[in-house]
Amino acid sequence: MKNLSEANITDAVIQTFDQTENARLKEIMSALVKHLHAFVREVNLTEEEWITGIHFLTATGRMCDERRQEFILLSDTLGVSTLKDLLNHRKPAGTTEWSILGPFYRAGAQELALGESIAGNMAGDATVVSGRVLDVEGKPIANALLDVWQADAEGFYDLQKPVPTSEGMDASRMELRGRFRTNENGEYVFRTIKPSYYPIPEDGPVGKMLRAVGRHPYRPAHIHFQVSADGHVPLTTELYLNGDPYLESDVVFGVRSSLVIDVVKNDSLEDAARYRVGAPFYTVAYDFVMERDANG
Amino acid sequence: MKNLSEANITDAVIQTFDQTENARLKEIMSALVKHLHAFVREVNLTEEEWITGIHFLTATGRMCDERRQEFILLSDTLGVSTLKDLLNHRKPAGTTEWSILGPFYRAGAQELALGESIAGNMAGDATVVSGRVLDVEGKPIANALLDVWQADAEGFYDLQKPVPTSEGMDASRMELRGRFRTNENGEYVFRTIKPSYYPIPEDGPVGKMLRAVGRHPYRPAHIHFQVSADGHVPLTTELYLNGDPYLESDVVFGVRSSLVIDVVKNDSLEDAARYRVGAPFYTVAYDFVMERDANG
Repeated sequence: MKNLSEANITDAVIQTFDQTENARLKEIMSALVKHLHAFVREVNLTEEEWITGIHFLTATGRMCDERRQEFILLSDTLGVSTLKDLLNHRKPAGTTEWSILGPFYRAGAQELALGESIAGNMAGDATVVSGRVLDVEGKPIANALLDVWQADAEGFYDLQKPVPTSEGMDASRMELRGRFRTNENGEYVFRTIKPSYYPIPEDGPVGKMLRAVGRHPYRPAHIHFQVSADGHVPLTTELYLNGDPYLESDVVFGVRSSLVIDVVKNDSLEDAARYRVGAPFYTVAYDFVMERDANG
Repeated sequence: MKNLSEANITDAVIQTFDQTENARLKEIMSALVKHLHAFVREVNLTEEEWITGIHFLTATGRMCDERRQEFILLSDTLGVSTLKDLLNHRKPAGTTEWSILGPFYRAGAQELALGESIAGNMAGDATVVSGRVLDVEGKPIANALLDVWQADAEGFYDLQKPVPTSEGMDASRMELRGRFRTNENGEYVFRTIKPSYYPIPEDGPVGKMLRAVGRHPYRPAHIHFQVSADGHVPLTTELYLNGDPYLESDVVFGVRSSLVIDVVKNDSLEDAARYRVGAPFYTVAYDFVMERDANG
Protein backbone atom coordinates (compact mmCIF):
# COMPACT_ATOMS: atom_id res chain seq x y z
CA MET A 1 0.00 0.00 0.00
CA LYS A 2 3.00 2.30 -0.26
CA ASN A 3 2.25 3.95 -3.60
CA LEU A 4 -0.96 5.60 -2.42
CA SER A 5 -2.48 8.06 -4.84
CA GLU A 6 -5.81 9.76 -5.51
CA ALA A 7 -6.56 6.84 -7.82
CA ASN A 8 -6.01 3.95 -5.38
CA ILE A 9 -6.43 5.27 -1.82
CA THR A 10 -10.11 4.29 -1.58
CA ASP A 11 -9.46 0.71 -2.67
CA ALA A 12 -6.45 0.55 -0.35
CA VAL A 13 -8.59 1.52 2.65
CA ILE A 14 -11.35 -0.90 1.71
CA GLN A 15 -8.77 -3.70 1.43
CA THR A 16 -7.89 -3.20 5.10
CA PHE A 17 -11.30 -4.70 5.92
CA ASP A 18 -10.40 -7.96 4.17
CA GLN A 19 -9.78 -9.70 7.49
CA THR A 20 -12.99 -8.51 9.17
CA GLU A 21 -14.68 -11.62 10.55
CA ASN A 22 -18.17 -10.14 10.78
CA ALA A 23 -19.33 -10.13 7.16
CA ARG A 24 -22.01 -7.51 7.75
CA LEU A 25 -19.52 -5.16 9.48
CA LYS A 26 -17.15 -5.63 6.54
CA GLU A 27 -19.95 -4.71 4.12
CA ILE A 28 -20.92 -1.62 6.12
CA MET A 29 -17.36 -0.34 6.62
CA SER A 30 -16.49 -0.88 2.95
CA ALA A 31 -19.59 0.98 1.77
CA LEU A 32 -19.01 3.75 4.34
CA VAL A 33 -15.46 4.36 3.10
CA LYS A 34 -16.57 4.24 -0.54
CA HIS A 35 -19.28 6.86 -0.07
CA LEU A 36 -17.32 9.02 2.37
CA HIS A 37 -14.40 9.20 -0.06
CA ALA A 38 -16.78 9.90 -2.96
CA PHE A 39 -18.10 12.89 -0.99
CA VAL A 40 -14.59 14.23 -0.27
CA ARG A 41 -13.63 13.82 -3.93
CA GLU A 42 -16.80 15.38 -5.34
CA VAL A 43 -16.48 18.60 -3.34
CA ASN A 44 -12.68 18.61 -3.37
CA LEU A 45 -12.72 19.18 0.39
CA THR A 46 -10.15 21.77 1.48
CA GLU A 47 -7.99 21.63 4.62
CA GLU A 48 -10.08 24.36 6.22
CA GLU A 49 -13.37 22.64 5.40
CA TRP A 50 -12.03 19.33 6.69
CA ILE A 51 -11.07 20.80 10.08
CA THR A 52 -14.41 22.66 10.23
CA GLY A 53 -16.11 19.29 9.78
CA ILE A 54 -13.93 17.71 12.49
CA HIS A 55 -14.84 20.51 14.90
CA PHE A 56 -18.55 20.25 14.02
CA LEU A 57 -18.62 16.50 14.73
CA THR A 58 -16.67 17.00 17.95
CA ALA A 59 -19.07 19.70 19.20
CA THR A 60 -22.04 17.51 18.24
CA GLY A 61 -20.69 14.64 20.34
CA ARG A 62 -19.89 16.88 23.27
CA MET A 63 -23.48 18.27 23.24
CA CYS A 64 -24.88 14.80 23.99
CA ASP A 65 -25.98 13.70 27.46
CA GLU A 66 -28.85 11.77 29.06
CA ARG A 67 -31.45 14.33 27.94
CA ARG A 68 -29.99 15.44 24.64
CA GLN A 69 -28.93 13.40 21.61
CA GLU A 70 -27.46 15.84 19.11
CA PHE A 71 -26.34 13.13 16.66
CA ILE A 72 -29.93 11.85 16.35
CA LEU A 73 -30.97 15.44 15.75
CA LEU A 74 -28.34 15.63 13.00
CA SER A 75 -29.56 12.36 11.49
CA ASP A 76 -33.16 13.64 11.65
CA THR A 77 -32.43 17.03 10.06
CA LEU A 78 -30.43 15.46 7.21
CA GLY A 79 -33.26 13.05 6.43
CA VAL A 80 -31.17 10.01 7.38
CA SER A 81 -33.62 8.90 10.09
CA THR A 82 -36.59 9.07 7.72
CA LEU A 83 -34.68 7.27 4.96
CA LYS A 84 -33.76 4.55 7.46
CA ASP A 85 -37.44 4.31 8.49
CA LEU A 86 -38.64 4.12 4.90
CA LEU A 87 -36.17 1.32 4.16
CA ASN A 88 -36.94 -0.64 7.33
CA HIS A 89 -40.71 -0.23 7.39
CA ARG A 90 -41.97 -0.68 3.86
CA LYS A 91 -45.74 -0.82 4.40
CA PRO A 92 -48.20 -2.64 2.13
CA ALA A 93 -50.61 -0.34 0.27
CA GLY A 94 -53.61 0.56 2.36
CA THR A 95 -51.88 0.19 5.73
CA THR A 96 -50.91 3.16 7.92
CA GLU A 97 -47.52 4.65 7.08
CA TRP A 98 -44.63 4.77 9.51
CA SER A 99 -43.27 8.05 10.84
CA ILE A 100 -40.31 8.82 13.06
CA LEU A 101 -40.22 7.90 16.75
CA GLY A 102 -38.47 11.12 17.76
CA PRO A 103 -36.43 11.64 20.94
CA PHE A 104 -39.32 12.20 23.37
CA TYR A 105 -40.84 8.72 23.74
CA ARG A 106 -41.06 7.40 27.32
CA ALA A 107 -42.00 3.85 28.20
CA GLY A 108 -44.46 3.19 31.01
CA ALA A 109 -47.17 5.82 30.46
CA GLN A 110 -50.33 5.19 32.49
CA GLU A 111 -53.05 3.03 30.91
CA LEU A 112 -56.30 5.00 30.88
CA ALA A 113 -59.93 4.12 30.18
CA LEU A 114 -61.33 5.13 26.81
CA GLY A 115 -62.55 8.71 26.85
CA GLU A 116 -60.13 9.80 29.58
CA SER A 117 -57.83 12.80 29.22
CA ILE A 118 -54.03 12.80 28.93
CA ALA A 119 -53.93 16.55 29.56
CA GLY A 120 -54.82 16.75 33.27
CA ASN A 121 -55.53 20.41 34.01
CA MET A 122 -53.27 21.79 31.32
CA ALA A 123 -54.40 24.86 29.39
CA GLY A 124 -55.11 24.55 25.69
CA ASP A 125 -57.79 23.91 23.11
CA ALA A 126 -59.79 20.86 24.20
CA THR A 127 -59.46 18.17 21.56
CA VAL A 128 -61.04 14.75 21.19
CA VAL A 129 -59.08 12.14 19.26
CA SER A 130 -60.95 9.06 18.08
CA GLY A 131 -60.99 6.32 15.49
CA ARG A 132 -60.48 2.59 15.07
CA VAL A 133 -57.67 0.08 14.69
CA LEU A 134 -58.31 -2.17 11.69
CA ASP A 135 -56.66 -5.08 9.95
CA VAL A 136 -55.87 -5.01 6.22
CA GLU A 137 -59.32 -6.32 5.39
CA GLY A 138 -60.95 -3.48 7.30
CA LYS A 139 -62.01 -5.65 10.25
CA PRO A 140 -61.81 -3.96 13.67
CA ILE A 141 -59.09 -5.18 16.02
CA ALA A 142 -60.23 -5.37 19.65
CA ASN A 143 -57.78 -4.90 22.53
CA ALA A 144 -55.14 -3.19 20.37
CA LEU A 145 -52.81 -1.02 22.47
CA LEU A 146 -52.21 2.65 21.58
CA ASP A 147 -49.30 4.41 23.30
CA VAL A 148 -49.81 8.15 22.81
CA TRP A 149 -47.60 11.17 23.48
CA GLN A 150 -47.48 14.79 22.35
CA ALA A 151 -46.23 18.32 23.04
CA ASP A 152 -48.34 20.93 24.85
CA ALA A 153 -49.92 24.11 23.52
CA GLU A 154 -46.53 25.85 23.75
CA GLY A 155 -44.73 23.05 21.93
CA PHE A 156 -42.98 21.46 24.93
CA TYR A 157 -42.83 17.82 26.01
CA ASP A 158 -42.80 16.93 29.69
CA LEU A 159 -39.15 15.85 29.32
CA GLN A 160 -38.27 19.41 28.34
CA LYS A 161 -39.77 21.10 31.39
CA PRO A 162 -39.04 19.26 34.63
CA VAL A 163 -41.06 20.44 37.60
CA PRO A 164 -39.19 22.33 40.35
CA THR A 165 -39.76 20.66 43.74
CA SER A 166 -38.18 20.99 47.19
CA GLU A 167 -36.03 17.97 46.23
CA GLY A 168 -34.79 19.62 43.03
CA MET A 169 -36.18 19.26 39.53
CA ASP A 170 -38.68 16.43 39.14
CA ALA A 171 -38.19 14.91 35.71
CA SER A 172 -40.28 11.84 36.54
CA ARG A 173 -43.74 13.36 36.15
CA MET A 174 -45.44 12.30 32.91
CA GLU A 175 -47.72 14.70 31.10
CA LEU A 176 -49.59 14.39 27.82
CA ARG A 177 -48.88 10.66 27.67
CA GLY A 178 -51.19 7.70 28.02
CA ARG A 179 -52.00 4.20 26.85
CA PHE A 180 -55.42 3.09 25.62
CA ARG A 181 -56.92 -0.22 24.49
CA THR A 182 -59.51 -0.47 21.71
CA ASN A 183 -62.93 -1.83 22.66
CA GLU A 184 -64.67 -4.82 21.07
CA ASN A 185 -65.46 -2.67 18.00
CA GLY A 186 -61.81 -1.72 17.56
CA GLU A 187 -62.58 1.84 18.68
CA TYR A 188 -60.45 4.25 20.68
CA VAL A 189 -61.16 7.74 21.98
CA PHE A 190 -59.30 10.08 24.32
CA ARG A 191 -59.24 13.72 25.30
CA THR A 192 -56.25 16.05 25.11
CA ILE A 193 -55.25 19.60 24.21
CA LYS A 194 -54.26 20.69 20.74
CA PRO A 195 -50.47 20.38 20.41
CA SER A 196 -48.45 23.22 18.92
CA TYR A 197 -45.76 23.20 16.28
CA TYR A 198 -42.35 23.59 17.91
CA PRO A 199 -38.66 24.10 17.18
CA ILE A 200 -36.25 21.22 17.74
CA PRO A 201 -33.50 22.15 20.24
CA GLU A 202 -31.51 24.79 18.39
CA ASP A 203 -28.86 25.87 20.90
CA GLY A 204 -26.30 23.32 19.65
CA PRO A 205 -24.30 22.52 16.51
CA VAL A 206 -27.40 21.29 14.63
CA GLY A 207 -29.20 24.59 15.27
CA LYS A 208 -26.11 26.39 14.03
CA MET A 209 -26.08 24.26 10.89
CA LEU A 210 -29.77 24.98 10.22
CA ARG A 211 -29.18 28.74 10.53
CA ALA A 212 -26.15 28.55 8.25
CA VAL A 213 -28.17 26.89 5.48
CA GLY A 214 -31.21 29.15 5.99
CA ARG A 215 -33.59 26.48 7.34
CA HIS A 216 -36.11 26.98 10.17
CA PRO A 217 -36.06 24.53 13.11
CA TYR A 218 -39.80 23.75 13.27
CA ARG A 219 -41.84 20.58 13.31
CA PRO A 220 -45.56 20.89 12.49
CA ALA A 221 -48.04 20.03 15.28
CA HIS A 222 -48.48 16.27 15.65
CA ILE A 223 -49.50 13.47 18.00
CA HIS A 224 -47.25 10.41 18.37
CA PHE A 225 -48.63 6.86 18.38
CA GLN A 226 -47.23 3.42 18.86
CA VAL A 227 -49.91 0.87 18.01
CA SER A 228 -49.60 -2.86 18.69
CA ALA A 229 -52.02 -5.72 18.19
CA ASP A 230 -51.65 -9.51 18.25
CA GLY A 231 -50.65 -10.96 14.91
CA HIS A 232 -49.69 -7.55 13.51
CA VAL A 233 -46.45 -5.65 12.97
CA PRO A 234 -46.02 -2.95 15.66
CA LEU A 235 -46.46 0.53 14.21
CA THR A 236 -44.72 3.79 15.13
CA THR A 237 -46.28 6.83 13.55
CA GLU A 238 -47.48 10.41 13.97
CA LEU A 239 -50.70 12.18 13.02
CA TYR A 240 -50.21 15.72 11.70
CA LEU A 241 -52.80 18.48 12.16
CA ASN A 242 -53.98 19.96 8.90
CA GLY A 243 -53.54 23.72 8.52
CA ASP A 244 -50.21 23.81 10.35
CA PRO A 245 -47.78 26.32 8.78
CA TYR A 246 -44.89 23.80 8.82
CA LEU A 247 -46.60 20.81 7.15
CA GLU A 248 -44.65 21.39 3.94
CA SER A 249 -41.29 21.99 5.61
CA ASP A 250 -41.02 19.69 8.65
CA VAL A 251 -37.37 20.08 9.73
CA VAL A 252 -37.07 16.31 10.32
CA PHE A 253 -39.04 15.08 7.29
CA GLY A 254 -41.70 13.17 9.24
CA VAL A 255 -44.87 14.26 7.42
CA ARG A 256 -46.74 11.91 5.05
CA SER A 257 -49.89 13.13 3.26
CA SER A 258 -51.79 10.07 4.45
CA LEU A 259 -51.04 11.03 8.08
CA VAL A 260 -52.40 14.60 7.86
CA ILE A 261 -55.78 14.80 9.57
CA ASP A 262 -58.36 17.58 9.64
CA VAL A 263 -59.05 19.44 12.86
CA VAL A 264 -62.81 20.05 13.10
CA LYS A 265 -64.25 22.72 15.37
CA ASN A 266 -67.39 21.62 17.22
CA ASP A 267 -69.72 24.16 18.90
CA SER A 268 -72.34 21.65 20.05
CA LEU A 269 -72.98 21.83 23.79
CA GLU A 270 -74.53 18.37 23.59
CA ASP A 271 -71.41 16.86 21.98
CA ALA A 272 -69.21 18.73 24.47
CA ALA A 273 -71.15 17.26 27.38
CA ARG A 274 -70.86 13.77 25.90
CA TYR A 275 -67.05 14.03 25.71
CA ARG A 276 -66.82 15.87 29.06
CA VAL A 277 -65.18 18.97 27.54
CA GLY A 278 -66.28 22.59 27.25
CA ALA A 279 -67.64 24.01 24.00
CA PRO A 280 -66.30 24.87 21.55
CA PHE A 281 -63.85 21.97 21.21
CA TYR A 282 -61.98 20.24 18.40
CA THR A 283 -62.13 16.73 17.03
CA VAL A 284 -59.67 14.72 15.00
CA ALA A 285 -60.32 11.20 13.74
CA TYR A 286 -58.11 8.53 12.23
CA ASP A 287 -58.39 4.79 11.60
CA PHE A 288 -55.08 2.93 11.91
CA VAL A 289 -54.70 0.02 9.48
CA MET A 290 -52.21 -2.55 10.73
CA GLU A 291 -49.90 -4.72 8.66
CA ARG A 292 -50.35 -8.43 9.31
CA ASP A 293 -47.25 -10.06 10.79
CA ALA A 294 -46.26 -12.85 8.40
CA ASN A 295 -44.38 -14.55 11.26
CA GLY A 296 -46.94 -13.71 13.95
CA MET B 1 -42.71 17.63 0.74
CA LYS B 2 -45.52 15.62 2.30
CA ASN B 3 -45.44 12.56 0.07
CA LEU B 4 -41.98 11.49 1.10
CA SER B 5 -40.87 8.07 -0.13
CA GLU B 6 -37.70 6.06 -0.67
CA ALA B 7 -37.67 7.50 -4.18
CA ASN B 8 -37.80 11.23 -3.36
CA ILE B 9 -36.52 11.72 0.20
CA THR B 10 -32.94 12.48 -0.88
CA ASP B 11 -34.01 15.16 -3.37
CA ALA B 12 -36.43 16.57 -0.78
CA VAL B 13 -33.61 17.01 1.75
CA ILE B 14 -31.28 18.53 -0.84
CA GLN B 15 -34.00 21.01 -1.81
CA THR B 16 -33.99 22.36 1.75
CA PHE B 17 -30.58 23.86 0.96
CA ASP B 18 -32.04 25.94 -1.87
CA GLN B 19 -32.00 29.08 0.28
CA THR B 20 -28.43 28.64 1.52
CA GLU B 21 -26.65 31.93 0.86
CA ASN B 22 -23.13 30.53 0.97
CA ALA B 23 -22.81 28.75 -2.38
CA ARG B 24 -19.92 26.57 -1.22
CA LEU B 25 -21.80 25.47 1.91
CA LYS B 26 -24.81 24.62 -0.27
CA GLU B 27 -22.58 22.52 -2.53
CA ILE B 28 -21.00 20.69 0.41
CA MET B 29 -24.28 20.00 2.26
CA SER B 30 -25.99 18.79 -0.93
CA ALA B 31 -23.13 16.41 -1.75
CA LEU B 32 -22.95 15.23 1.87
CA VAL B 33 -26.66 14.31 1.91
CA LYS B 34 -26.41 12.64 -1.48
CA HIS B 35 -23.51 10.40 -0.46
CA LEU B 36 -24.74 9.77 3.10
CA HIS B 37 -28.12 8.63 1.76
CA ALA B 38 -26.43 6.50 -0.90
CA PHE B 39 -24.52 4.73 1.88
CA VAL B 40 -27.69 4.10 3.93
CA ARG B 41 -29.48 2.77 0.83
CA GLU B 42 -26.63 0.57 -0.35
CA VAL B 43 -26.30 -1.30 2.94
CA ASN B 44 -30.01 -1.08 3.79
CA LEU B 45 -29.06 0.17 7.25
CA THR B 46 -31.16 -1.43 9.98
CA GLU B 47 -32.57 0.30 13.08
CA GLU B 48 -30.02 -1.46 15.26
CA GLU B 49 -27.10 -0.54 13.00
CA TRP B 50 -28.31 3.07 12.85
CA ILE B 51 -28.38 3.43 16.64
CA THR B 52 -25.00 1.66 16.90
CA GLY B 53 -23.63 4.32 14.53
CA ILE B 54 -25.23 7.11 16.60
CA HIS B 55 -23.62 5.73 19.76
CA PHE B 56 -20.23 5.33 18.05
CA LEU B 57 -20.22 8.95 16.86
CA THR B 58 -21.36 10.16 20.28
CA ALA B 59 -18.58 8.24 22.06
CA THR B 60 -16.05 9.53 19.55
CA GLY B 61 -17.05 13.13 20.28
CA ARG B 62 -17.01 12.59 24.02
CA MET B 63 -13.45 11.15 23.83
CA CYS B 64 -12.13 14.47 22.51
CA ASP B 65 -10.34 17.02 24.69
CA GLU B 66 -7.31 19.32 24.52
CA ARG B 67 -4.87 16.39 24.18
CA ARG B 68 -6.97 13.93 22.21
CA GLN B 69 -8.80 14.35 18.90
CA GLU B 70 -10.66 11.10 18.26
CA PHE B 71 -12.47 12.38 15.14
CA ILE B 72 -9.14 13.18 13.48
CA LEU B 73 -8.04 9.67 14.42
CA LEU B 74 -11.21 8.34 12.77
CA SER B 75 -10.56 10.44 9.66
CA ASP B 76 -6.95 9.20 9.60
CA THR B 77 -7.82 5.50 9.99
CA LEU B 78 -10.51 5.64 7.29
CA GLY B 79 -8.08 7.24 4.84
CA VAL B 80 -10.08 10.47 4.67
CA SER B 81 -7.16 12.59 5.91
CA THR B 82 -4.80 11.15 3.31
CA LEU B 83 -7.38 11.54 0.53
CA LYS B 84 -7.87 15.16 1.59
CA ASP B 85 -4.08 15.66 1.52
CA LEU B 86 -3.75 14.06 -1.91
CA LEU B 87 -6.48 16.31 -3.30
CA ASN B 88 -5.12 19.48 -1.70
CA HIS B 89 -1.43 18.94 -2.31
CA ARG B 90 -1.05 17.58 -5.81
CA LYS B 91 2.71 17.73 -6.28
CA PRO B 92 4.44 18.13 -9.66
CA ALA B 93 6.47 15.09 -10.72
CA GLY B 94 9.93 15.13 -9.23
CA THR B 95 9.03 17.16 -6.13
CA THR B 96 8.79 15.64 -2.65
CA GLU B 97 5.40 14.13 -1.86
CA TRP B 98 3.18 15.34 0.95
CA SER B 99 2.37 13.15 3.94
CA ILE B 100 0.05 13.71 6.90
CA LEU B 101 0.77 16.27 9.61
CA GLY B 102 -0.49 14.03 12.41
CA PRO B 103 -1.67 15.22 15.82
CA PHE B 104 1.74 15.70 17.47
CA TYR B 105 3.09 18.84 15.79
CA ARG B 106 4.07 21.67 18.17
CA ALA B 107 4.96 25.17 17.02
CA GLY B 108 7.98 26.91 18.47
CA ALA B 109 10.63 24.20 18.62
CA GLN B 110 14.14 25.53 19.30
CA GLU B 111 16.30 26.53 16.31
CA LEU B 112 19.56 24.59 16.42
CA ALA B 113 22.85 24.82 14.57
CA LEU B 114 23.47 22.27 11.84
CA GLY B 115 24.90 19.04 13.29
CA GLU B 116 23.27 19.52 16.68
CA SER B 117 21.13 16.83 18.34
CA ILE B 118 17.37 16.93 18.99
CA ALA B 119 17.65 13.93 21.33
CA GLY B 120 19.38 15.45 24.38
CA ASN B 121 20.49 12.54 26.55
CA MET B 122 17.76 10.16 25.44
CA ALA B 123 18.59 6.50 24.99
CA GLY B 124 18.39 4.99 21.52
CA ASP B 125 20.35 4.17 18.40
CA ALA B 126 22.35 7.25 17.42
CA THR B 127 21.24 8.38 13.99
CA VAL B 128 22.47 11.11 11.68
CA VAL B 129 19.94 12.63 9.29
CA SER B 130 21.27 14.67 6.39
CA GLY B 131 20.54 15.86 2.89
CA ARG B 132 19.71 18.96 0.91
CA VAL B 133 16.74 21.16 0.07
CA LEU B 134 16.51 21.68 -3.70
CA ASP B 135 14.32 23.51 -6.17
CA VAL B 136 12.66 21.71 -9.10
CA GLU B 137 15.74 22.27 -11.24
CA GLY B 138 17.95 20.60 -8.67
CA LYS B 139 19.54 23.83 -7.46
CA PRO B 140 20.26 23.97 -3.71
CA ILE B 141 18.11 26.33 -1.64
CA ALA B 142 20.06 28.15 1.07
CA ASN B 143 18.39 29.25 4.31
CA ALA B 144 15.41 26.86 3.93
CA LEU B 145 13.78 26.08 7.29
CA LEU B 146 13.23 22.49 8.41
CA ASP B 147 10.93 21.91 11.38
CA VAL B 148 11.54 18.37 12.62
CA TRP B 149 9.73 16.15 15.13
CA GLN B 150 9.59 12.45 15.92
CA ALA B 151 8.74 9.75 18.46
CA ASP B 152 11.37 8.20 20.73
CA ALA B 153 12.80 4.66 20.74
CA GLU B 154 9.65 3.44 22.53
CA GLY B 155 7.30 5.16 20.09
CA PHE B 156 6.20 8.07 22.30
CA TYR B 157 6.11 11.79 21.53
CA ASP B 158 6.90 14.33 24.25
CA LEU B 159 3.20 15.30 24.29
CA GLN B 160 2.33 11.77 25.35
CA LYS B 161 4.62 11.62 28.38
CA PRO B 162 4.53 14.77 30.44
CA VAL B 163 7.30 14.98 33.03
CA PRO B 164 6.29 14.78 36.70
CA THR B 165 7.61 17.82 38.63
CA SER B 166 6.97 19.28 42.06
CA GLU B 167 4.50 21.61 40.33
CA GLY B 168 2.59 18.72 38.74
CA MET B 169 3.02 17.29 35.26
CA ASP B 170 5.17 19.40 32.98
CA ALA B 171 3.76 19.19 29.48
CA SER B 172 5.74 22.17 28.23
CA ARG B 173 9.11 20.45 27.80
CA MET B 174 9.94 19.76 24.17
CA GLU B 175 11.86 16.66 23.22
CA LEU B 176 12.88 15.26 19.86
CA ARG B 177 11.94 18.50 18.13
CA GLY B 178 14.07 21.14 16.49
CA ARG B 179 14.37 23.62 13.66
CA PHE B 180 17.33 23.82 11.29
CA ARG B 181 18.31 26.09 8.41
CA THR B 182 20.12 24.87 5.32
CA ASN B 183 23.61 26.29 4.66
CA GLU B 184 24.75 28.07 1.50
CA ASN B 185 24.92 24.69 -0.30
CA GLY B 186 21.31 23.86 0.65
CA GLU B 187 22.57 21.22 3.09
CA TYR B 188 21.11 20.17 6.43
CA VAL B 189 22.33 17.68 9.02
CA PHE B 190 21.24 16.83 12.55
CA ARG B 191 21.64 14.09 15.13
CA THR B 192 18.84 12.13 16.76
CA ILE B 193 17.88 8.63 17.91
CA LYS B 194 16.16 6.11 15.71
CA PRO B 195 12.36 6.42 16.19
CA SER B 196 10.22 3.35 16.75
CA TYR B 197 6.97 2.29 15.15
CA TYR B 198 4.06 2.92 17.51
CA PRO B 199 0.32 2.34 17.98
CA ILE B 200 -2.08 5.25 17.64
CA PRO B 201 -4.13 5.76 20.84
CA GLU B 202 -6.33 2.68 20.97
CA ASP B 203 -8.30 3.06 24.20
CA GLY B 204 -11.20 4.86 22.52
CA PRO B 205 -13.93 4.18 19.93
CA VAL B 206 -11.42 4.20 17.05
CA GLY B 207 -9.33 1.50 18.75
CA LYS B 208 -12.50 -0.51 19.25
CA MET B 209 -13.37 -0.11 15.57
CA LEU B 210 -9.89 -1.25 14.51
CA ARG B 211 -10.17 -4.38 16.67
CA ALA B 212 -13.66 -5.13 15.33
CA VAL B 213 -12.41 -5.08 11.73
CA GLY B 214 -9.20 -6.99 12.55
CA ARG B 215 -6.75 -4.14 11.90
CA HIS B 216 -3.62 -3.40 13.95
CA PRO B 217 -3.13 0.16 15.31
CA TYR B 218 0.50 0.71 14.21
CA ARG B 219 2.30 3.40 12.30
CA PRO B 220 5.75 2.54 10.87
CA ALA B 221 8.74 4.46 12.25
CA HIS B 222 9.05 7.91 10.70
CA ILE B 223 10.42 11.42 11.13
CA HIS B 224 8.14 14.43 10.52
CA PHE B 225 9.27 17.47 8.53
CA GLN B 226 7.81 20.81 7.64
CA VAL B 227 10.03 22.48 5.08
CA SER B 228 9.66 26.09 3.98
CA ALA B 229 11.70 28.22 1.62
CA ASP B 230 11.14 31.62 -0.03
CA GLY B 231 9.24 31.38 -3.31
CA HIS B 232 8.23 27.76 -2.66
CA VAL B 233 5.09 26.02 -1.45
CA PRO B 234 5.48 24.95 2.21
CA LEU B 235 5.79 21.18 2.50
CA THR B 236 4.52 18.86 5.24
CA THR B 237 5.84 15.34 4.97
CA GLU B 238 7.34 12.34 6.73
CA LEU B 239 10.35 10.15 6.00
CA TYR B 240 9.78 6.44 6.67
CA LEU B 241 12.55 4.08 7.76
CA ASN B 242 13.05 1.17 5.38
CA GLY B 243 12.74 -2.29 6.96
CA ASP B 244 9.95 -1.31 9.33
CA PRO B 245 7.37 -4.13 9.76
CA TYR B 246 4.42 -1.72 9.26
CA LEU B 247 5.51 0.02 6.05
CA GLU B 248 2.92 -1.90 4.05
CA SER B 249 0.08 -1.44 6.52
CA ASP B 250 0.37 2.02 8.10
CA VAL B 251 -2.89 2.39 10.03
CA VAL B 252 -3.29 6.00 8.85
CA PHE B 253 -2.15 5.53 5.21
CA GLY B 254 0.76 8.00 5.37
CA VAL B 255 3.48 6.00 3.60
CA ARG B 256 4.61 6.84 0.04
CA SER B 257 7.31 4.74 -1.64
CA SER B 258 9.26 7.87 -2.52
CA LEU B 259 9.43 8.79 1.18
CA VAL B 260 10.92 5.48 2.37
CA ILE B 261 14.61 5.90 3.11
CA ASP B 262 17.32 3.35 3.87
CA VAL B 263 18.86 3.19 7.31
CA VAL B 264 22.60 2.53 6.90
CA LYS B 265 24.73 1.18 9.74
CA ASN B 266 28.14 2.83 10.04
CA ASP B 267 30.96 1.25 12.11
CA SER B 268 33.57 3.85 11.24
CA LEU B 269 35.12 5.43 14.34
CA GLU B 270 36.36 8.26 12.16
CA ASP B 271 32.86 9.04 10.86
CA ALA B 272 31.44 8.71 14.39
CA ALA B 273 33.93 11.27 15.67
CA ARG B 274 33.09 13.63 12.83
CA TYR B 275 29.36 13.54 13.71
CA ARG B 276 30.01 13.53 17.49
CA VAL B 277 28.25 10.18 18.06
CA GLY B 278 29.47 6.80 19.27
CA ALA B 279 30.12 3.93 16.85
CA PRO B 280 28.27 2.08 15.50
CA PHE B 281 25.67 4.63 14.43
CA TYR B 282 23.08 4.95 11.68
CA THR B 283 22.66 7.36 8.83
CA VAL B 284 19.66 8.32 6.74
CA ALA B 285 19.78 10.77 3.86
CA TYR B 286 17.11 12.54 1.87
CA ASP B 287 16.99 15.51 -0.51
CA PHE B 288 13.76 17.50 -0.35
CA VAL B 289 12.63 18.92 -3.70
CA MET B 290 10.35 21.91 -3.26
CA GLU B 291 7.48 22.99 -5.51
CA ARG B 292 7.82 26.54 -6.82
CA ASP B 293 5.05 28.83 -5.58
CA ALA B 294 3.35 30.23 -8.68
CA ASN B 295 2.07 33.16 -6.58
CA GLY B 296 5.21 33.52 -4.46
